[in-house]
Amino acid sequence: MAVPTTLPAYLIEDAVTRALAEDLGRAGDITSAATIPADKAAEAAIVARQPGIVAGMMLARRAFALVDPAARLEVLVADGDAVHAGAVLGRVHGPARAILAGERVALNFVGHLSGIASATAAFVQAVSGTGARITCTRKTTPGLRALEKHAVRCGGGSNHRFGLDDAVLIKDNHIAVAGGVAPAIEKARAAVGHLVKVEVEVDDLDQLREALTAGPDAVLLDNMSLAELRDAVGIVAGRAATEASGGVTIGNVRAIAETGVDFISSGWITHSAPALDVGLDITA
Amino acid sequence: MAVPTTLPAYLIEDAVTRALAEDLGRAGDITSAATIPADKAAEAAIVARQPGIVAGMMLARRAFALVDPAARLEVLVADGDAVHAGAVLGRVHGPARAILAGERVALNFVGHLSGIASATAAFVQAVSGTGARITCTRKTTPGLRALEKHAVRCGGGSNHRFGLDDAVLIKDNHIAVAGGVAPAIEKARAAVGHLVKVEVEVDDLDQLREALTAGPDAVLLDNMSLAELRDAVGIVAGRAATEASGGVTIGNVRAIAETGVDFISSGWITHSAPALDVGLDITA
Amino acid sequence: MAVPTTLPAYLIEDAVTRALAEDLGRAGDITSAATIPADKAAEAAIVARQPGIVAGMMLARRAFALVDPAARLEVLVADGDAVHAGAVLGRVHGPARAILAGERVALNFVGHLSGIASATAAFVQAVSGTGARITCTRKTTPGLRALEKHAVRCGGGSNHRFGLDDAVLIKDNHIAVAGGVAPAIEKARAAVGHLVKVEVEVDDLDQLREALTAGPDAVLLDNMSLAELRDAVGIVAGRAATEASGGVTIGNVRAIAETGVDFISSGWITHSAPALDVGLDITA
Amino acid sequence: MAVPTTLPAYLIEDAVTRALAEDLGRAGDITSAATIPADKAAEAAIVARQPGIVAGMMLARRAFALVDPAARLEVLVADGDAVHAGAVLGRVHGPARAILAGERVALNFVGHLSGIASATAAFVQAVSGTGARITCTRKTTPGLRALEKHAVRCGGGSNHRFGLDDAVLIKDNHIAVAGGVAPAIEKARAAVGHLVKVEVEVDDLDQLREALTAGPDAVLLDNMSLAELRDAVGIVAGRAATEASGGVTIGNVRAIAETGVDFISSGWITHSAPALDVGLDITA
Amino acid sequence: MAVPTTLPAYLIEDAVTRALAEDLGRAGDITSAATIPADKAAEAAIVARQPGIVAGMMLARRAFALVDPAARLEVLVADGDAVHAGAVLGRVHGPARAILAGERVALNFVGHLSGIASATAAFVQAVSGTGARITCTRKTTPGLRALEKHAVRCGGGSNHRFGLDDAVLIKDNHIAVAGGVAPAIEKARAAVGHLVKVEVEVDDLDQLREALTAGPDAVLLDNMSLAELRDAVGIVAGRAATEASGGVTIGNVRAIAETGVDFISSGWITHSAPALDVGLDITA
Amino acid sequence: MAVPTTLPAYLIEDAVTRALAEDLGRAGDITSAATIPADKAAEAAIVARQPGIVAGMMLARRAFALVDPAARLEVLVADGDAVHAGAVLGRVHGPARAILAGERVALNFVGHLSGIASATAAFVQAVSGTGARITCTRKTTPGLRALEKHAVRCGGGSNHRFGLDDAVLIKDNHIAVAGGVAPAIEKARAAVGHLVKVEVEVDDLDQLREALTAGPDAVLLDNMSLAELRDAVGIVAGRAATEASGGVTIGNVRAIAETGVDFISSGWITHSAPALDVGLDITA
Repeated sequence: MAVPTTLPAYLIEDAVTRALAEDLGRAGDITSAATIPADKAAEAAIVARQPGIVAGMMLARRAFALVDPAARLEVLVADGDAVHAGAVLGRVHGPARAILAGERVALNFVGHLSGIASATAAFVQAVSGTGARITCTRKTTPGLRALEKHAVRCGGGSNHRFGLDDAVLIKDNHIAVAGGVAPAIEKARAAVGHLVKVEVEVDDLDQLREALTAGPDAVLLDNMSLAELRDAVGIVAGRAATEASGGVTIGNVRAIAETGVDFISSGWITHSAPALDVGLDITA
Repeated sequence: MAVPTTLPAYLIEDAVTRALAEDLGRAGDITSAATIPADKAAEAAIVARQPGIVAGMMLARRAFALVDPAARLEVLVADGDAVHAGAVLGRVHGPARAILAGERVALNFVGHLSGIASATAAFVQAVSGTGARITCTRKTTPGLRALEKHAVRCGGGSNHRFGLDDAVLIKDNHIAVAGGVAPAIEKARAAVGHLVKVEVEVDDLDQLREALTAGPDAVLLDNMSLAELRDAVGIVAGRAATEASGGVTIGNVRAIAETGVDFISSGWITHSAPALDVGLDITA
Repeated sequence: MAVPTTLPAYLIEDAVTRALAEDLGRAGDITSAATIPADKAAEAAIVARQPGIVAGMMLARRAFALVDPAARLEVLVADGDAVHAGAVLGRVHGPARAILAGERVALNFVGHLSGIASATAAFVQAVSGTGARITCTRKTTPGLRALEKHAVRCGGGSNHRFGLDDAVLIKDNHIAVAGGVAPAIEKARAAVGHLVKVEVEVDDLDQLREALTAGPDAVLLDNMSLAELRDAVGIVAGRAATEASGGVTIGNVRAIAETGVDFISSGWITHSAPALDVGLDITA
Repeated sequence: MAVPTTLPAYLIEDAVTRALAEDLGRAGDITSAATIPADKAAEAAIVARQPGIVAGMMLARRAFALVDPAARLEVLVADGDAVHAGAVLGRVHGPARAILAGERVALNFVGHLSGIASATAAFVQAVSGTGARITCTRKTTPGLRALEKHAVRCGGGSNHRFGLDDAVLIKDNHIAVAGGVAPAIEKARAAVGHLVKVEVEVDDLDQLREALTAGPDAVLLDNMSLAELRDAVGIVAGRAATEASGGVTIGNVRAIAETGVDFISSGWITHSAPALDVGLDITA
Repeated sequence: MAVPTTLPAYLIEDAVTRALAEDLGRAGDITSAATIPADKAAEAAIVARQPGIVAGMMLARRAFALVDPAARLEVLVADGDAVHAGAVLGRVHGPARAILAGERVALNFVGHLSGIASATAAFVQAVSGTGARITCTRKTTPGLRALEKHAVRCGGGSNHRFGLDDAVLIKDNHIAVAGGVAPAIEKARAAVGHLVKVEVEVDDLDQLREALTAGPDAVLLDNMSLAELRDAVGIVAGRAATEASGGVTIGNVRAIAETGVDFISSGWITHSAPALDVGLDITA
Repeated sequence: MAVPTTLPAYLIEDAVTRALAEDLGRAGDITSAATIPADKAAEAAIVARQPGIVAGMMLARRAFALVDPAARLEVLVADGDAVHAGAVLGRVHGPARAILAGERVALNFVGHLSGIASATAAFVQAVSGTGARITCTRKTTPGLRALEKHAVRCGGGSNHRFGLDDAVLIKDNHIAVAGGVAPAIEKARAAVGHLVKVEVEVDDLDQLREALTAGPDAVLLDNMSLAELRDAVGIVAGRAATEASGGVTIGNVRAIAETGVDFISSGWITHSAPALDVGLDITA
C-alpha cells in the first residue's frame, strides 16, 4: 500500500547528518582506514533478518551518500512494504570504506523505524475489518518525532498531533482551571484558527455528555472499560470522532476496536517497539 | 551506586532544545494558552508507574527551565537509583502553563533513558557474581547515542565504543582485505595512537588463536556456543579482554557469563528496551 | 485584550540571536566602543511615534539582554495593546554601549511586528460587529512566519495554516489530478489524522455544492463577488466554515464581512503592512 | 543594468533552508501527498502580476531544488531587470508535488525582495539626473538584511552600513559622551582600521561646520529643511560625502536631491515596501 | 592601554561552545568523573609562564561557566595588558571537576590569542615613534578571524579588512580584467556604498602614479624596496593612506616604518605567531 | 607515505562553510563583483612557496566548490606528501570571481595545516631510526582539533587523545584526590569501558614504580631529565607504553628519543607551528 505522505528532505538531511557525526566522530572509521585501501570497491545487501514492515530506506540511502557520494544505495522496497525474513531491502555499491562507515547509521535508522512500522502494522492487522484506526501519540523518542510519525504511517497507522501547537487537546487540568469542559472548549475555539481541531479528554460518560454540548471535533475516551467505550460510542453517535486510549496492547486492541471507536491510540508503538532486525551483508 | 560519569552540559542543552522545538513547534502549547491564565501557578510530581532504574533527570530539569526559567524541577533521585512503582522522582513548581508545556518532553527523556537503564540493570543483575560485565554496542537510536550510553552506565553497564573513531574493531571484512587477522591488527596498531585500543572479532577458535599472536587488547567472540566460549576463555588466558556477543537475552546471559568471559555485549538494551512508565501528577 | 497565545521561548532566542549576529557582525558596535566608556550607564525609552497595536516586546527585551545581561528592558505594555503616538512601550537601563548596540535590532522587531498587528487590527476594526474574523495566510516574510502569525493574533486576527503540514487546503491543481472535488477531499481525509482539518478552495457555486457533498471542514471562496459570497454563505448553511479571499482591502473588507462569511483572509497584512514607527530616546 | 554584486551562496542556502523548514514543517505538503501521485510531472511559470523590478530569483531556484533536485527552475530574467505585468520570470519543470511544495517559499522570497527593489527603483527614478543616490539603512527585516541590501542594489540603490561593525556612524549620544563632534571623530579614527569610513550625524549647520574640522568621510544631515540641506552642501563643498535622511518620501525625494546632496537614505524602502505581486501558474 | 573595541557576546558563545564540544566529546572528562567526587571544590590560578600581552580572558571565563555555572573565573587583567612571567591572569573557583574539564579550552584560547597579541605588540614596539601602525591581514586561522582580529587590537595593532565584503582591495587580476588601475577604481567606487573604502595594490611607482589619478582611499605598496617605499610615500603626499606589505619581519619592520608609510601589514602575526605559554595551577 | 586515516566529510563541510561565511560575509567579494564580469573564466595554480609536507587539500577543493560548483580544484598531491618550493599542489579552473573569492580560505587551510604537518615531520625526521614516535596533545587551536590531528598524521606523527572523553589521563590532581596513583588507576579502570586506555602522568621514578603496580596502559613521564627518562624506560621494561613530555624542541627531541621512550609529545607542533607559505598564481 502506498504511504500517502512523505518526509521533507530537510528533515532527512538533518537526521542523517547528526547520526553520522555521532558515529564518525573526530577521526572517522579508523579501523577501515587502517586496513582497507581507499580504492577498494565493494557491494553489499541490506537484508531483513525477520519479517516486518519497512520504513526509513531514504535515510539509509542518504547515510551512504553523505559518507561518500560514490556510495550509492539502490532501494528495492518502498517504505510501507511488508517483507519476509531474508528479503533484500537494498543494494549498496561503492568504496568499501564508505559502505562500512555508513553501515551502522543506515541500519540503525531502518531498524528503529521499521520496528515502529511493524509494531503499528501488527495493531492495524489486529483491528482489521472493524473500522477502527490505530493512531500514535506524542510519546516519541526525543528528536525523532517526525521520523517516527512517518514510520507509523508506513505501518498503516494514523498520526495524532505532531506537537502542542497543531491541535487542541483539552485534559483534566485545563478543564479544572477553565471552569468546566464546555468553557474550556469554548475558550480554545475562540483562541485558535479555523483550521485547528479541538479534542477533549473525558474520563466518564457524564463528562462526555457535557463535553458534547460544546461540539468538540473529537473526544478522547481515557482508560474506559470496554462497556464504557461501547456506551460512549453510542452517546457520541457520530457527533465527534472517538478515540480510545490507555493500556492498549496487542491482546486487547481488537476488543477495543469492536466497541466501535474510530481511533485507538498507543504510545507503545513509538516508545517501546523493538527494532526490526536488519543487517548488511557484503556480497562482493 | 554512584554513576562514575556525567553527561556534558552542551549535550543536554542540545538534546532538550531540539526536543522542545519538536513539541512546541510554531505556536507553543495552544491548549494551555487558551485555557490557563499566564499567572496560574502549579506543582506537580514526576512519578514512576513501575519499578526500574532512573536515568535522564537532568534532561527533565532542563526541559522545564528552557520552557520557562520560573519552572524549576527539584530532582529527588540520582541517575542510577533503583526506584519502586509510585516513587516520586522529582517535583516541579512554577507557572502551570510551563509545567504542562514541558511535561511530555521531560517524560519522554526520562521514560526512554530509564527504560534503557532498567533493561541494562536486569542483565547486570542476571550476571551478578560472575565477574562478567554487560556492555552496549553502536546499535543506538540515531542522534541519542551519548545519552543512551549514559543510561547504560546508569544501569550498571559498561560502554563499548562511542563511534567508529575511538577504538579499533576489526571484523571479517577488514581481515579479508588486510590478508589475515595478524596483518589487520598490525596495520591498525601502526595507524592509531597509543591511547587507542584494538579489538578483533573472531568466529572460531582457530581464528582466535591466530588473532592472539598479534596481541589485540580485546577479542570479540561472535555467536559462539557456550562450549566454544568456555574454550575461548581458556585459550585467551588473560592475554586480552574477552567479549561475547550475538543473541544475548535475559534468558541466556547468565549462562554466557558463567563461561568466564569478561564482557557481554547487547544491542537490545539500547535499540529495543521498552520505555519505563513515568507520569506527571499535578499536585497543587 | 489578552492575546490567548504565546511565542515559544526557543523561537525568540533563535530570531534575536540571528538578528544580533547580523547587526553586530564581526566587531560589534565599533562607534560606541570608540567613543563611549565601558562603564558609562544610560537609560532610554522605547517610544511609539505613531498610534498602533504593539507586538514583539519580548524580542526587544531579549535583544538587549543578549548584548549584555546588564541591559534590562522593563516592558510597559502587553503585546496586543493599543497605544497612542508618544506612548512609552518600555524603559531600558544598563551600559550605554549595550543600549546603543541593541537599539536597532530591538526596534526592527517591534516596528515590523507592530506594523503587522496594527494592519490586522485595522481590518478587525473594519469588520467589527459582523461576526467575520480576519485571518492571515502563508504569504509571510521568509524565516519570520511564527513571529508574524503571533503579530496577527496581537492585532485581533486569527491564524490560518502555519505550513503545508498542519492542515489540508485543496486547490484546483489537486482537484484536477484527483479527479474532482469530492475524490480529492476523500483522499485527503484518508491520508491525514483525525486532528487535521480539510479545507477546499472553490471558484464558483457549482464547485462549492459539489465540495459540500464530501463534507469539508472549511471552504475557501476565492475571488468571488459580493453577490456570490452571499449566495455561497446561504448554500453552505453552516455545514462548513466559510473563508473569503482575494483582493481584500481595508476599503472592501466590511462589505465582504457583511456577506456573512466566517473568515476573511489577507496576505497583505503580513507581506505588505508598513512598519510601525518606533524609536528609542536616551533619557539619562 | 547589471547589478554589480552577488549574494554569497551560503546566505542563499541558509535563507532558503530555513524558509522551507518553516513551511514544510514536520510532514511536508500533506495535501499534495494525499492527492497527487509521486510520479506526476508538471510545468509552471512564475509570473509578475504587476510591473516592477525583480530580485531574488536565485532564492526561488534554490527553493525548488531543495524540495526536490528534480524540480528545476529556469530563470528568465536577471535580478535588477524591470518587468511588466504578466512577464514570465521563470519556468519550473519537475514533479508536481515538488512544484506545489516549493511554490510559496519561492514566491515569498521573490515578492518580498522585488517589492524592495521596486520601491528603491521608484526613488531612484524620482531623482534621476540629479546626481543623488538612494541608499538604504539598518532598518531591515530581522534576519534578512543581506538579502534586502541585495534587493536595494537590484533597484539601483546604494548600500549603507551592513551592521554596526563595518563603518563608524557617530550620533548625538556618542558626541555628548565623547565631549564634542571633533573629539568623537578623532577617537573613532584612532580606534578603527584604515579601511573603515567615519560618518557623523549632524542636526544643524554649526554642528556641521564643527564636524568638518575633524575630516569625516561623510556627514549625515538629519531632518534638515531643504534650505538647510542646500546650505549644508555648500558648506561641505566636496570635503565629505553628504547624506540626507529623515522623512524621505516619494513625494519629496526629488526636491531633496535637488539640494545637491550625494546620498538620500530611506528606511521605508526596506521596512515598509509592499511586496511585488508574483504568482505561479501551472502550465502543463 | 584600553582596547577600544569589544567582541560581540554571540561570537564568544559560539567559539567557546564549539571548543568545549570538541574537548568534552561524548562523555565529558572521564578521568575526573572517575577519580574526583562531584562535590569536591577547588581553586586555581591561570598563570602566564612567559611575559606577553593578554588576550581572550572573556573566552576563558565563559569556558568554565559553560562547563558548570558554579565554576567562576575572576579575571584579574584586562585584554591588552602586558604581563610578566608568573603573573596571575585570573582565579577560578568551583567544582574541581569543572575546573579540570574547562582548563584546556580556557588555556587554548588565552594561549593562542595572547600569542597573537604579543607578536603584534612586538611589531608595534619595534615601530614605536615612527607614526606607522601595524595592521593584520585576512591570513587568519579558519573560523577564528574575529577573535584573532581582536587579539591584534589587544596588541596595539590595527585591523585590516575583516572579509571580502567590507572594503575594496583591488589587485593585479582585477586591474588586468578591468582595463587598468583607474577603470578598476572607478568601477569599484560606482558599485559600493559611500561607507566603503577602496584600496589598490600597486607593484611599482608608475602604477602608483596611475592609481592616484583615480583617488583611492589607500594604496598597498607590495613587496617594494625601502627606497621604493620612501619614493612612494613622497609621491602619495598624503592623498591616500599608504600600506607596506610583503616580507615584513621583526628585523625589518622598523626600517620599513621609517620610510614614512602609514601602515605595515603582516600575515605572520596571525597565521604563525607562537602561542603564549599559560598554565593553570591548582591552589586549593 | 599514505596517511592511514581520513577526515570525515561532515567535518570538512562544517569547517569550510564556517570559514567561507567568515570571509564572504554579508556581500561576498565586492571587489571582484565590481571589476570582473560574471562570465570571465580563469585558471590558477596553488603553489608551495617553501618546502614542506602538505595537509588539507580536500578543504581547499571544497572551498572553491562551495563558492561556486563550477570552480573545480584538481588536487595534484596527496595529503602527507613532501613537496619542494615551487611545487604545484593543485590547479583550479572556473569562473574568475569564484577563484578569487575562494582563494584566501583555501590557502588559509592549506597553509595552517601544512605548517603543522611540516613541523611534525621535522620532529619525526629528527627521531628517525630511534623507534620513538612523535605525538600531539590537546593544545590545539580551538575549533580545529580534528583537522590539526589529521595534519599531525600527515606529518608522520601519531595522535594522542582527541578529547577528555576517549582515554583516561590521570594527573597529579586526580591522584591527590583519589588517594594515590594505584587507587586512581583502579577507579578509572572500573569506570570506563574495556576499549578505553588508561595513562598516568608521573613526575619521578618512585611515583612511576607505584603506578606500574596498577597496570596502566601508558605512563606519561613529565619533565624528566634524559637520565631519568632512561631509568624510567628501564623500570617500565615494556609493561606500559612510555611517553615523554615537557619542553620538547627540535633541538632536544632526538636525545629524548634515544632514551628509549616510545612516544614524545609536543604541544608546539599544533599550537605554535608557523604556517607553510602557499600561494595562488593565476595562470590563465
